[in-house]
Amino acid sequence: MSLKPIKDLSKLCIHTITTKSWSIEEAAENYERVGVKGISVWRQYLEGRNIAETGDRLRKHGLDVVSLVRGGFFPSVSSGQRQKAITDNLRAVDEAAALGAPMIVLVCGADPGQSLEVSRAQIQEGIEKVLPYAIDHGVKLAIEPLHPMYADTRSAVNTMKQANDMAEAIGSDHVGVAADVYHLWWDPDLKNEIQRCGRNGNLFAFHICDWISPTVDLLNDRGLMGEGCIDIPGIRAWVEEAGFDGFNEVEIFSDRLWATDQREFLDKIVESYYQC
Amino acid sequence: MSLKPIKDLSKLCIHTITTKSWSIEEAAENYERVGVKGISVWRQYLEGRNIAETGDRLRKHGLDVVSLVRGGFFPSVSSGQRQKAITDNLRAVDEAAALGAPMIVLVCGADPGQSLEVSRAQIQEGIEKVLPYAIDHGVKLAIEPLHPMYADTRSAVNTMKQANDMAEAIGSDHVGVAADVYHLWWDPDLKNEIQRCGRNGNLFAFHICDWISPTVDLLNDRGLMGEGCIDIPGIRAWVEEAGFDGFNEVEIFSDRLWATDQREFLDKIVESYYQC
Repeated sequence: MSLKPIKDLSKLCIHTITTKSWSIEEAAENYERVGVKGISVWRQYLEGRNIAETGDRLRKHGLDVVSLVRGGFFPSVSSGQRQKAITDNLRAVDEAAALGAPMIVLVCGADPGQSLEVSRAQIQEGIEKVLPYAIDHGVKLAIEPLHPMYADTRSAVNTMKQANDMAEAIGSDHVGVAADVYHLWWDPDLKNEIQRCGRNGNLFAFHICDWISPTVDLLNDRGLMGEGCIDIPGIRAWVEEAGFDGFNEVEIFSDRLWATDQREFLDKIVESYYQC
Repeated sequence: MSLKPIKDLSKLCIHTITTKSWSIEEAAENYERVGVKGISVWRQYLEGRNIAETGDRLRKHGLDVVSLVRGGFFPSVSSGQRQKAITDNLRAVDEAAALGAPMIVLVCGADPGQSLEVSRAQIQEGIEKVLPYAIDHGVKLAIEPLHPMYADTRSAVNTMKQANDMAEAIGSDHVGVAADVYHLWWDPDLKNEIQRCGRNGNLFAFHICDWISPTVDLLNDRGLMGEGCIDIPGIRAWVEEAGFDGFNEVEIFSDRLWATDQREFLDKIVESYYQC
């Protein structure tokens, strides 16, 4: 592997949910202050704002808007709910376009009342319904495979292979994959599937954090890079060998870290980023 | 699929950990009372007992001793720890032989301080070191693939494919696989890998419980069969089509269910078993 060490922050992006208690304005100021160059915006941070002006403000802070998070949640046993999901995803496209975000990350969804196969079919159908509108607005859609522990309600797409399969079945240059080390690190096929993803032009995003031991909560106990057991440099090497040259997006949900001073937490993110 | 409905309790086995607060003597009496025919014994329930006499007592209650749980935990960054694991697994073979258990379930282990590949190599090495002693004592070893959420510390074997690969690499009729729906239900390759496992004579055990939504604890929030989203009848059909005709082993870890009256819980196990 030809891993290049992290030398600067030019590819560091942070998800606004990572510094959960900060407004998007506070996040932008602080990210700029420490030299972060990218921001991925969770939709709740846009509430009550003029979205286009918010996008301009982020760029004035020297931040690339990397993605809008999150669309998806397509499957349901209820056709009414599935239609609501389509409507919500169309609205997400509007928001991404207004913000100037080139991409929406899709947490695809799952309904425990039906099989994963049915949920996956509904995911593909949902993406295909939203896709023309996304293309019209210049917004890409990134399927994020989620860890199998989220297969009941959050995503029926649980491996890079499944995400690749779906992106290739849809076959649009506006549909690809967001690879997150937290969800994928355990997968023995990960290297091959990352290579395949890059080869097909589908590797749209790369998310980082760490898996700590013990993990005490299924949702909100992720670690800072280096705190856990994920070989982040190894996976980053695969991703870069597959042709990816976008941002390394820090996405950490952690009750433990959210309870700390967020400026100190941000310093730790930067420090640990150099170990990736 | 040619699923045969559950008609009686002749293939119902319960793991002693399921009715956690009961001693093995209480478990045996109660299991017999409701018509359970098999028991899988967690090693801590043998502490302070004459193991051979305990095995006889279980059989007098009309219970087949299906397996001893658990061996494994082979990997470690420390060679001393790895040697300790071998010693412990040899002792487990002694216990299984004394109890009259034909099989030990292996929770293979993982060490977050090293890669999953290294942990898997140490697992295979550990099994191969224990195997001659197991063969001498007529005890089989069942590799249990664990859910990927346990890949950090509990098992570097996380799919049926990996368990099949390892069992086939070892190539002994005394090494096979224990398939647990809780760990495997999400896997899109599950049907094929169960077929492969049966075809190669490696399908040694079948464990059941359910995945509930939301799951609030990584370890101890499993559900009764039917409480969750796992298609247990569907997976049972695959297992039986693959030639398995052993016990359906109920293995539930649940703080919620452990806090209830264990006789009522046992009644619910029997009731829900008919839905499998």
